[in-house]
Amino acid sequence: MPRFMDVHEGMHGITDEALRAAHQADLDIQDDEGVDFQRAWGDPESGMVWCVSEAPDAEAVKRIHERAGHPTTTVYPVPVEV
Amino acid sequence: MPRFMDVHEGMHGITDEALRAAHQADLDIQDDEGVDFQRAWGDPESGMVWCVSEAPDAEAVKRIHERAGHPTTTVYPVPVEV
Repeated sequence: MPRFMDVHEGMHGITDEALRAAHQADLDIQDDEGVDFQRAWGDPESGMVWCVSEAPDAEAVKRIHERAGHPTTTVYPVPVEV
Repeated sequence: MPRFMDVHEGMHGITDEALRAAHQADLDIQDDEGVDFQRAWGDPESGMVWCVSEAPDAEAVKRIHERAGHPTTTVYPVPVEV
């Protein structure tokens, strides 16, 4: 399944607990779209968060994130990785 | 050790082989700065590449990437992760 990197802005001050809760909100509904959210990293100072997922397409990633309460329009396919 | 997410732009058309070679160039010299490059993902279409590393600080990440031939000024600490 294709892999994606999505980017969130404006999450200033994000904590481990908040990121875990946001990730869990994705996990709770991701099966609806066949998405598998795998990892996420956050920088409380800049407010940036990145998530790696596998999904049928970028739109599925966006729909899950939107329903989970943290929408983003910035989702890149990452077919290349090491 | 602190973890970092760095972002590269302009790597349009990047292939698995090219990303692997770039990553290896980092690995070859990363011990000089105590950096541990762990994963990287690339989008050939947008030219974006993201790398996750552990390092003493962001400047060490920048120095290794610069010496390896793929400099970036965009290195975020990511103390929060799931």
